[in-house]
Amino acid sequence: MGQLLKRMTRGVALLPVAALTGALAYAQDADLEARLAALEESVNSSASSYVDNSYLFLIGGIIVMLMAAGFMCLEVGLVRSKNAAMQSMKNVVLYAVAGFMFWLVGYNMAYPGSTILGGLLGTTPVIWSGGDLEAMSDAGYAPASDWFFQMVFVATAASIVSGTVAERVKLWPFLIFTAVLTGFIYPVVVSWEWGGGYLDSAWAFSDFAGSTLVHSTGGWAALMGALIIGPRTGKYFGKQVNPMPGSNIPLAGLGTFILWFGWFGFNGASQLAAGTVTDINSVAQIFANTNMGAVGGTLFAMITTAVLYKGKVDATMVFNGALGGLVSITAEPLAPSMGASVLIGGVGGVLAVLTVPILDKFKIDDVVGAIPVHLVCGIWGTIIVAASYGNHIMPVEIDGELQTSYVGQLVGVLLTGVFVSIASVIVWTALKFTIGVRASEEEEMAGMDVSEVGLEAYPDFTNA
Amino acid sequence: MGQLLKRMTRGVALLPVAALTGALAYAQDADLEARLAALEESVNSSASSYVDNSYLFLIGGIIVMLMAAGFMCLEVGLVRSKNAAMQSMKNVVLYAVAGFMFWLVGYNMAYPGSTILGGLLGTTPVIWSGGDLEAMSDAGYAPASDWFFQMVFVATAASIVSGTVAERVKLWPFLIFTAVLTGFIYPVVVSWEWGGGYLDSAWAFSDFAGSTLVHSTGGWAALMGALIIGPRTGKYFGKQVNPMPGSNIPLAGLGTFILWFGWFGFNGASQLAAGTVTDINSVAQIFANTNMGAVGGTLFAMITTAVLYKGKVDATMVFNGALGGLVSITAEPLAPSMGASVLIGGVGGVLAVLTVPILDKFKIDDVVGAIPVHLVCGIWGTIIVAASYGNHIMPVEIDGELQTSYVGQLVGVLLTGVFVSIASVIVWTALKFTIGVRASEEEEMAGMDVSEVGLEAYPDFTNA
Amino acid sequence: MGQLLKRMTRGVALLPVAALTGALAYAQDADLEARLAALEESVNSSASSYVDNSYLFLIGGIIVMLMAAGFMCLEVGLVRSKNAAMQSMKNVVLYAVAGFMFWLVGYNMAYPGSTILGGLLGTTPVIWSGGDLEAMSDAGYAPASDWFFQMVFVATAASIVSGTVAERVKLWPFLIFTAVLTGFIYPVVVSWEWGGGYLDSAWAFSDFAGSTLVHSTGGWAALMGALIIGPRTGKYFGKQVNPMPGSNIPLAGLGTFILWFGWFGFNGASQLAAGTVTDINSVAQIFANTNMGAVGGTLFAMITTAVLYKGKVDATMVFNGALGGLVSITAEPLAPSMGASVLIGGVGGVLAVLTVPILDKFKIDDVVGAIPVHLVCGIWGTIIVAASYGNHIMPVEIDGELQTSYVGQLVGVLLTGVFVSIASVIVWTALKFTIGVRASEEEEMAGMDVSEVGLEAYPDFTNA
Repeated sequence: MGQLLKRMTRGVALLPVAALTGALAYAQDADLEARLAALEESVNSSASSYVDNSYLFLIGGIIVMLMAAGFMCLEVGLVRSKNAAMQSMKNVVLYAVAGFMFWLVGYNMAYPGSTILGGLLGTTPVIWSGGDLEAMSDAGYAPASDWFFQMVFVATAASIVSGTVAERVKLWPFLIFTAVLTGFIYPVVVSWEWGGGYLDSAWAFSDFAGSTLVHSTGGWAALMGALIIGPRTGKYFGKQVNPMPGSNIPLAGLGTFILWFGWFGFNGASQLAAGTVTDINSVAQIFANTNMGAVGGTLFAMITTAVLYKGKVDATMVFNGALGGLVSITAEPLAPSMGASVLIGGVGGVLAVLTVPILDKFKIDDVVGAIPVHLVCGIWGTIIVAASYGNHIMPVEIDGELQTSYVGQLVGVLLTGVFVSIASVIVWTALKFTIGVRASEEEEMAGMDVSEVGLEAYPDFTNA
Repeated sequence: MGQLLKRMTRGVALLPVAALTGALAYAQDADLEARLAALEESVNSSASSYVDNSYLFLIGGIIVMLMAAGFMCLEVGLVRSKNAAMQSMKNVVLYAVAGFMFWLVGYNMAYPGSTILGGLLGTTPVIWSGGDLEAMSDAGYAPASDWFFQMVFVATAASIVSGTVAERVKLWPFLIFTAVLTGFIYPVVVSWEWGGGYLDSAWAFSDFAGSTLVHSTGGWAALMGALIIGPRTGKYFGKQVNPMPGSNIPLAGLGTFILWFGWFGFNGASQLAAGTVTDINSVAQIFANTNMGAVGGTLFAMITTAVLYKGKVDATMVFNGALGGLVSITAEPLAPSMGASVLIGGVGGVLAVLTVPILDKFKIDDVVGAIPVHLVCGIWGTIIVAASYGNHIMPVEIDGELQTSYVGQLVGVLLTGVFVSIASVIVWTALKFTIGVRASEEEEMAGMDVSEVGLEAYPDFTNA
Repeated sequence: MGQLLKRMTRGVALLPVAALTGALAYAQDADLEARLAALEESVNSSASSYVDNSYLFLIGGIIVMLMAAGFMCLEVGLVRSKNAAMQSMKNVVLYAVAGFMFWLVGYNMAYPGSTILGGLLGTTPVIWSGGDLEAMSDAGYAPASDWFFQMVFVATAASIVSGTVAERVKLWPFLIFTAVLTGFIYPVVVSWEWGGGYLDSAWAFSDFAGSTLVHSTGGWAALMGALIIGPRTGKYFGKQVNPMPGSNIPLAGLGTFILWFGWFGFNGASQLAAGTVTDINSVAQIFANTNMGAVGGTLFAMITTAVLYKGKVDATMVFNGALGGLVSITAEPLAPSMGASVLIGGVGGVLAVLTVPILDKFKIDDVVGAIPVHLVCGIWGTIIVAASYGNHIMPVEIDGELQTSYVGQLVGVLLTGVFVSIASVIVWTALKFTIGVRASEEEEMAGMDVSEVGLEAYPDFTNA
């Protein structure tokens, strides 16, 4: 109903100023003044930049949303077929839980109107209720576009945990952990930095799109989960590591590409504005650098795995290398040159490969390699940010502005790590001693699909 | 060739007004007037809103286009492996048929220049021939951007039918039905409402993005198909329902996410404009509400299935719950609050789960659950729109404007249902008694892949 | 850190002109002049078109980037399961190699500042180092947005080769070939036309989005690869062709849809600008025509295969028909009518089907049908461009401008073919006689996954 009306009247809004009268006969002041005033109003009321900024959040937001599908494909491809339906479903549900909790408490906690404890805790944990549709927000973009963009980030953090603890965690405790992570833990971390809190003001901590805030947060939560839940039955015999190969490598490859695709929104739209020359130039450069980070991660991981495995190139390591490169460039995807982006991502790719055997040594069973990719590369990417801002060791003040530094970055990494780890341990442990966190050995052997989902992922052709 | 020229000259268009002359020495009227006129022309000819609106259709359009891939994944994942190649191909071809027919007759029938029978039938069923590339369309957006956006909607309606009648319908009759649905049946329904026809003017019927016009239309056509074609051989034995589990649950999960992703275009771009503050604020709020509708559908469906199936959570029901939530919020994704959106979607999720056994009771064999999701949730979403517009029971007139009401919404639902059902029955029946609509029992047992496509979907690893 | 600051100050940029002073008391010239000057500066500095153009490249670019995933799905679906992990990984790595090489040399070679040999060779093969973030580029768009958009095109050309030579080429020689193709061969071809070189100036050659420059270039390189590497072991016995069916048809279908989706960016953003009415109208029309090209390809291929195979419709032929239609419309997706687009694409669809047995006759083993789709349809699409520009046989000059003609188009096709073929033969042959290009028969039988990747694609359910 409203649509038809809009169809008919919209054209009018496009021509806010009266057409030129043609002959310029009498150039009278009063006439000139009226025309000028009309023009001023037209220009001043232009929503052009406002629309450009909002589009950045909306388009960036939906492609980050698709990263949830990318995580699903990656994780489902890397679990055994008897857990594939569970993993598929868990990824859909966790995205829903993350959105629900971020609406209910998370968003206002992450971007609080006021804080206590020196910026450590926001004090507005209330439901986010949308903005005024008629008014131009002072922020320079549509209010809901920001909510949407921030929401898909919290879902990313939750997706990271899902992969690590796969194949043995039970559905309900996982969902409860997800709810706490997305409603409380993640928002607190975000409030310290993007919310303008402690890390931002006291340490000039810099994390452009979330190597630490999103990826390490997810990584620490995953690590604590892996420690408390324990490895899959049969994964480790003494010093022997029993490989449990993923059941659908092409699906993992598709997931990798979808995540790479979504990362342009993740990093690009984190510029937060696109309506000026500098902003759109920056968004474009972020796209290019983000791609080069992934390029570096892919190529370096490929070479590393070829060296380690006598010429054979482990596909899953290459996929994780690409993702490790992306995580690494996320903390600062604008300042580095294209070549530096290749190197930053490349180191990430190497770390993603080398961390895997170390985790196995400690019998930390990370099904999809999320800890190497998101936690280790997240730390690396965050620390190296200081190289783009004058290589300061300590956060010195120059011209009255505190400088980003290696120590400042490390403080941010550690504070996040300590807080997320403690909070995660509390929640995982509480779940363990109440409803329990892992399936029985019998259920695990049968597969989570049979025991938790009640159907098989691939009933027509599973031999396993 | 033209591209190079464009590369070199484009910059000029960006600076349509002469640079400032610097010193503001003689402020003469004539000079001022000339500068003002130049500026007026520059501002008046600005395409900013026009571009913003067109971008909404183009970007929204391509992600709705990707929903065709989402339907393909969902349906292929939910059929048995012996029908998976057929289902893949059918989804590609139906998208092509929909585009062809909507160009040939559909678009001009849906948005007719003139109507007869009190707005019930458009009278311009001619080929759509594009717009003037040089001129700014009065509609406020590029003409082809609207054609494109409307076209991907009709493909959605056709995709709905494809899932319900899978695993036994023959290819050619299905394609003929698709051609009639997309070229004639759907356009007539759309003309009543978005085309400004009967339902819009007489009942203040409101269906923002198509819970009824797109989803129920597809749903009614699917229901009639299921009734006339009959259930799959062996599906029902007396009162017993023989489960025929889907062969690739992860693919169905991916399809669910792709559909969820595409829905931001489906609902968001149905705002039809993005060039003003109110429009872009609204698009953003629609994104947020659409997500919350899906969140509600997912979570409520999960809880419902857990209650029904003793703690186990049926993955396919969760997927359909998400989609049911999305269909439910589609009729009015702007007016409800975020919390109301969760509830509207949540009821949809419950309906999507509860309708399945009812259909089975009547031996209506809907392979993918499209009737619960698109028809039942489409009706629910359409009726509840009245709650956002003053809870009027009847379409009363206030300040000269007819109000959206429960009865008005019901009339729209019923008129659409009656018309689409009768038209579908006629077409399906005509096909049944001429070229036949379903494969022989022998062909069905062998699988449609062997009998209709001539190759297997998964030749290397099918046991079934 | 910078983000918070941006959040707080961004609003200001939206209101560059002082608010209206209200009462229009004294309309003095000096005052008017100041207001006019302020307004002029505001309008002149508006980034609106600049942002619109850059968005076209960025959004178009990411969806073309996703075509890499589409190629992966298509190719993985069409190889046997024992080569599926290799094919997945190869597609990720080739995209990385393409980006790396295009940064290192390709981009500046394709769009050189100066040329030698009458425009045949650019002379600036240096690293692309980004643009000035603060300045508005004279080109009318963000510099990095163009780099990004051009980079995803070169990746497309590389993806084409990957499918043809699948199942027997070794990883490292393939990657070296990819590096040469994307760093040198493709950029030289592009420089002749989009770079404003020989073909553009001497023959008025016209190739809007790359039927020849991208698709035929990839196709010729693939053809030479197939000839030099030879067919898969067991594919041809005397005159008998041994079918080696693809292992995952639904994945190939998904790949087809993803490619179709990406093509809207491929063709649409090749308009290179979107900030004016004519440009955005053109982008929209290109979307519509591109879709109709694919529609024609799909439907014509379906009918052709049904006729050839006694009513059965080969799904893989339908997928390739859609892609053949897309390649065919790529050389000129704006000028033809919607109906002409159906026909142009339709002929492409028929060619895609009919070329397959011809290749088999010559024992050219093209695993996925990339040569029919990209080379043959690329040639067809390029030649038929002349029909949209006055049907000139020879490149006559009218009003001082050289006209696009059939002969001119043919010259472009042939020059590209000769150059790419010779260059490819040199590289493939050099690889053959040094590190070798194909796996041993034993490795080929075991599958590339085991021999090159060291893991299986589908370990839980492969029978083959």
